[in-house]
Amino acid sequence: MIVVLKRDSGPAEQESVRGRLADSGLEARPVAERMPRLLEVEGTGVDAALEARLRELPEVEGLVREAVRHPLVSRELQPETSLVRVERPGFEPVVFGTSEVPVMAGPCSVESWPQLLETAQATRDAGARLLRGGAWKPRTSPYSFQGLGPEGLELLVRARDETGLLIVTEALDRESLDLVAEHADLVQIGTRNMSNFPLLQAAGRCGKPVLLKRGFSSTLEEWLLAAEYLLANGNDQVILCERGVRTFGDHARFVMDLNIIPAAQSITHLPVAADPSHGTGRSDCVVPLARAAVAVGCDGLMLEVHPRPAEALSDGPQALLPSRLTPLIRQLDQVAAALGRSTLAGSRRRAAEG
Amino acid sequence: MIVVLKRDSGPAEQESVRGRLADSGLEARPVAERMPRLLEVEGTGVDAALEARLRELPEVEGLVREAVRHPLVSRELQPETSLVRVERPGFEPVVFGTSEVPVMAGPCSVESWPQLLETAQATRDAGARLLRGGAWKPRTSPYSFQGLGPEGLELLVRARDETGLLIVTEALDRESLDLVAEHADLVQIGTRNMSNFPLLQAAGRCGKPVLLKRGFSSTLEEWLLAAEYLLANGNDQVILCERGVRTFGDHARFVMDLNIIPAAQSITHLPVAADPSHGTGRSDCVVPLARAAVAVGCDGLMLEVHPRPAEALSDGPQALLPSRLTPLIRQLDQVAAALGRSTLAGSRRRAAEG
Amino acid sequence: MIVVLKRDSGPAEQESVRGRLADSGLEARPVAERMPRLLEVEGTGVDAALEARLRELPEVEGLVREAVRHPLVSRELQPETSLVRVERPGFEPVVFGTSEVPVMAGPCSVESWPQLLETAQATRDAGARLLRGGAWKPRTSPYSFQGLGPEGLELLVRARDETGLLIVTEALDRESLDLVAEHADLVQIGTRNMSNFPLLQAAGRCGKPVLLKRGFSSTLEEWLLAAEYLLANGNDQVILCERGVRTFGDHARFVMDLNIIPAAQSITHLPVAADPSHGTGRSDCVVPLARAAVAVGCDGLMLEVHPRPAEALSDGPQALLPSRLTPLIRQLDQVAAALGRSTLAGSRRRAAEG
Amino acid sequence: MIVVLKRDSGPAEQESVRGRLADSGLEARPVAERMPRLLEVEGTGVDAALEARLRELPEVEGLVREAVRHPLVSRELQPETSLVRVERPGFEPVVFGTSEVPVMAGPCSVESWPQLLETAQATRDAGARLLRGGAWKPRTSPYSFQGLGPEGLELLVRARDETGLLIVTEALDRESLDLVAEHADLVQIGTRNMSNFPLLQAAGRCGKPVLLKRGFSSTLEEWLLAAEYLLANGNDQVILCERGVRTFGDHARFVMDLNIIPAAQSITHLPVAADPSHGTGRSDCVVPLARAAVAVGCDGLMLEVHPRPAEALSDGPQALLPSRLTPLIRQLDQVAAALGRSTLAGSRRRAAEG
Repeated sequence: MIVVLKRDSGPAEQESVRGRLADSGLEARPVAERMPRLLEVEGTGVDAALEARLRELPEVEGLVREAVRHPLVSRELQPETSLVRVERPGFEPVVFGTSEVPVMAGPCSVESWPQLLETAQATRDAGARLLRGGAWKPRTSPYSFQGLGPEGLELLVRARDETGLLIVTEALDRESLDLVAEHADLVQIGTRNMSNFPLLQAAGRCGKPVLLKRGFSSTLEEWLLAAEYLLANGNDQVILCERGVRTFGDHARFVMDLNIIPAAQSITHLPVAADPSHGTGRSDCVVPLARAAVAVGCDGLMLEVHPRPAEALSDGPQALLPSRLTPLIRQLDQVAAALGRSTLAGSRRRAAEG
Repeated sequence: MIVVLKRDSGPAEQESVRGRLADSGLEARPVAERMPRLLEVEGTGVDAALEARLRELPEVEGLVREAVRHPLVSRELQPETSLVRVERPGFEPVVFGTSEVPVMAGPCSVESWPQLLETAQATRDAGARLLRGGAWKPRTSPYSFQGLGPEGLELLVRARDETGLLIVTEALDRESLDLVAEHADLVQIGTRNMSNFPLLQAAGRCGKPVLLKRGFSSTLEEWLLAAEYLLANGNDQVILCERGVRTFGDHARFVMDLNIIPAAQSITHLPVAADPSHGTGRSDCVVPLARAAVAVGCDGLMLEVHPRPAEALSDGPQALLPSRLTPLIRQLDQVAAALGRSTLAGSRRRAAEG
Repeated sequence: MIVVLKRDSGPAEQESVRGRLADSGLEARPVAERMPRLLEVEGTGVDAALEARLRELPEVEGLVREAVRHPLVSRELQPETSLVRVERPGFEPVVFGTSEVPVMAGPCSVESWPQLLETAQATRDAGARLLRGGAWKPRTSPYSFQGLGPEGLELLVRARDETGLLIVTEALDRESLDLVAEHADLVQIGTRNMSNFPLLQAAGRCGKPVLLKRGFSSTLEEWLLAAEYLLANGNDQVILCERGVRTFGDHARFVMDLNIIPAAQSITHLPVAADPSHGTGRSDCVVPLARAAVAVGCDGLMLEVHPRPAEALSDGPQALLPSRLTPLIRQLDQVAAALGRSTLAGSRRRAAEG
Repeated sequence: MIVVLKRDSGPAEQESVRGRLADSGLEARPVAERMPRLLEVEGTGVDAALEARLRELPEVEGLVREAVRHPLVSRELQPETSLVRVERPGFEPVVFGTSEVPVMAGPCSVESWPQLLETAQATRDAGARLLRGGAWKPRTSPYSFQGLGPEGLELLVRARDETGLLIVTEALDRESLDLVAEHADLVQIGTRNMSNFPLLQAAGRCGKPVLLKRGFSSTLEEWLLAAEYLLANGNDQVILCERGVRTFGDHARFVMDLNIIPAAQSITHLPVAADPSHGTGRSDCVVPLARAAVAVGCDGLMLEVHPRPAEALSDGPQALLPSRLTPLIRQLDQVAAALGRSTLAGSRRRAAEG
């Protein structure tokens, strides 16, 4: 059994709880050095009465009895889905983990102000809630466009001011993380960095909510452990995001693994989003897979949009035209309704209905 | 370019068309021995006028200009989705390839008359259109239950009489194929036999419509070529069925590859169904993945149902309880509505609406 | 614990052993219907004394205490590697499972007498021990060359007479199995049929040794269970053969999984061969991978050879020229020597040394 | 066609070559911004005479006519295998890319001085050429041992002084890279960082040779492009290292993809090493796969060794006992001899022979 202490616990709280356990004849040891929140109690001497007493200690957040390697993200610790709030003073906040399924949309890469502005306006007009766009791009080839960097981030900030949409963008290393955490509203950790543990540790301390893409060959446990890195470093505002896995198949760039969404939701309290643009790599498959992702029960959706896909500096083949966004989100909302959910913000939905 | 002759063409028709092409200075050769329907015209001497004349020849069904290896299943040959009719005198026919998404449900294995009858009645009452159930079971272990064989088929026939549901069951070899084709209404070729070419050839001549599961490690082209075996041997009543692929993942027995459904539909005229029971292997994932399959645009759905999953002789962990079928199909119908489709038969839908 | 009875045991022997167990207060039940060789003893009541008594019963072949699903192929039942004898009166027999690593070589498909004869002579001259060649070919496309069938088998028989090499060829279904088992010396079950259970059952009763290729997406347990089908049906002359698996990679048609050779050898007594021609699909990789297969410890090697690869009717890109075979087998023999083994027959090796 | 300029070329050299091409009526443009070494010449106007003149220009290193995305690592640019020198004043240098196959061995993690010293001495005594050991460990769980960090690096330096073996260790981020590049002799970039492009850029400028592990789900092209990042940033001392890929299989932690070694060697001039310890994850498979890696033609070998595997803080199940190293390297040397190579340094081999 693992005893989870409250978020800001330190050595003193840990020692105090160890003492209480020792009084009951139980030995507890820290799960890891420099991780004072977790105490492992060995053996089978914990009865219901002791459990109840433990839960009442002021230092204790909860107990995890299942032998999971990732207690902080476990649904046993927290039965309800976490609410992850993306917010900024003066802007409408976006909350993941409710019956709303917020849509994030925008270009793969931020390329220029006109490209970004046109996309951002279409994104807002279609009812999406967050603007995405890459300023730092992890590219397979050293000779490909690597993103505009800080300048791209500035354009995103300008687009936020222009449209009122909060912004999400990817951080690649400590340097870009500092800038993204300072200026953006949601920090994306990409598929190629899901196992970049120094970056996860830094993102755990960055002070902004994090969208954690699944590594394209990662197991469910590896993904949850990557999230556990974030929580263990102090950040509990984490959204998971499935974005397709690598298989033997050649009909699409990746295969969306929608199975993993309910499988993850059954064992973690974190909201789980889906990215059908990267998940398929084919714009003609993005619409059906976006519907499927909503139908499977995802808690958020990320879509790539570009006004002129053929000219995109990255991932053009998977980009939707801005004009397709409005009918798509409307159709997604119909699908969501079958699950008692919506892809539109509450305010807009009420407006649409009423 | 490939010239496709009409279905019952023989050497005479082939010779006649070759002569007409020779008159225009074009050489054509049969694509394969003993396959008189296909003539390949090499070179670039085919202009629009000649194409138009070729299409008007009484022996010609159509032309396929793209360099596909599977011309008979290609959407270029036939732009509209094929209608595959499962029918039997005295029973309500079921048609795949329309806006209806017929549901096939029933136990993995036929185990006993009470088990089958209880499941079949729930299946019918929930609005499913076909009863599934395995009489011959391909089992990984020689010591596992191998199916009731002919006796299982008899029970299916009895359940058809009892419930009015047409039946689909798997054939494993020439012997079981003869029996299944004689007594059942839709012949299933399972995932482990997608590349059993002698069986495909025999199924091409069996006289009944065929449901062709995708091999769990097959590419799209391999799957379409397996279907091409059926059509090339005379059977154009073929439904494809995605049932999950094998990956590195361990959160489910297989990963549903819903991407392949729109990818296949874009290049073949055959209807494409989905089997989320085998596709996940986890009953708690079947409901969300069934919704996702309908949302992605599948043309049919296969579900495993068992009154007592824990006692099932095969695949219990993926079986739904019969009682879950009615609310599930109702929810699926709401999802289908977002696509202008329905999971209920027209008659029943009108009844439900009216 | 599973009690394995001797090979020709029937219900009477089974009943007798059950009785002996009952005398000791132990209940035993058959592992499966119509499989009288296996009795499962539940519980923990079997002590060393009883084990010793059981092993002495005249009906008992051995005991398998580990909870394996494939007791007959388990190394616990038989600690030494099985000797699989390929033999025919008047020909030099070839034995798999010794320190010799017999090489099987020949064309993918038997195409014509001159092609086969030229290849067979080079194969014999290079020191290979068996001639391979496909008469029935499982082809992905219905329009590809499907093999010469019975005529191909006749050519193989003629080549055997001409060269003195025993022959191995693939059976695809019950019909071709009957012919192959009658005329060839080693029956091959191909990768696409590893899970064709009716064919495995028939091959278990065919009276000839069987070379069982691994399915290209099969786990080790599935492969061993496929072999168990053969043994459970009466055939204990089985050679396993790794032939490459399907992965995400695109640098070769398949990836040789040489890991599985020692992994299999550690738990089964069956000899394990390797086929680097199919395992790579690239003739320039066949030589290095053949060396690697010998170095990893395979018990046999299968190689594809064609006098004019560019004209081959199947799998030309992976065929070696006949002239490469002699230096290759010589180099392989040097590699084998590092393991105390040889790729040449004992007689020839002694000749080469002396 | 791509014109590759010499290593220290800048804008001036680039401009000069562009001018010469313009004189011949050919337009050339830089392949990428801030990458002055590569000029792409479009069109088909380059005849043999012009090619010869281009090759003679003082600024030009060579031409790459094949349409590869990674010209700097291409064997077309440099037909002979690169020599990668690991060296330090006062120590015997180790060169990769010759007929020698240097062995790198040591513990997965540096855990303590006695553990490291015992392993290092056995490593040296067995004839291995480099000592490996992790100071910074990328661990899937935040609660696992993360390495001793700088203290681990100090222990490695001490072991180098003690044994005379040069050292290789992994860098995880810019901070650890600075320390590793300063104190170690060969910098390892691990499988989880093969697509960590900021780290690759920094390693390209670090001034030490780099061992680049293949990502466990990376294609050959992705791997070569990762190496291209290193060369494009100024580091041409790069060794590739295959370490197993992730598949559907469960008989080993990973599957060694030995196919990729000859496939890579056929298109890149960089030496290619193999790591059968991570490649299998099972100590009982390391010995056979090490033999196979040498037989396939690898240019270097990395092995994990631990005096007490059961107590190892990471990857114990794949560690060999130090006592196994001497007989293993001797057996590997016999295998290497079949290829005209050796796993021992020239000096030691001569000593052993003489």
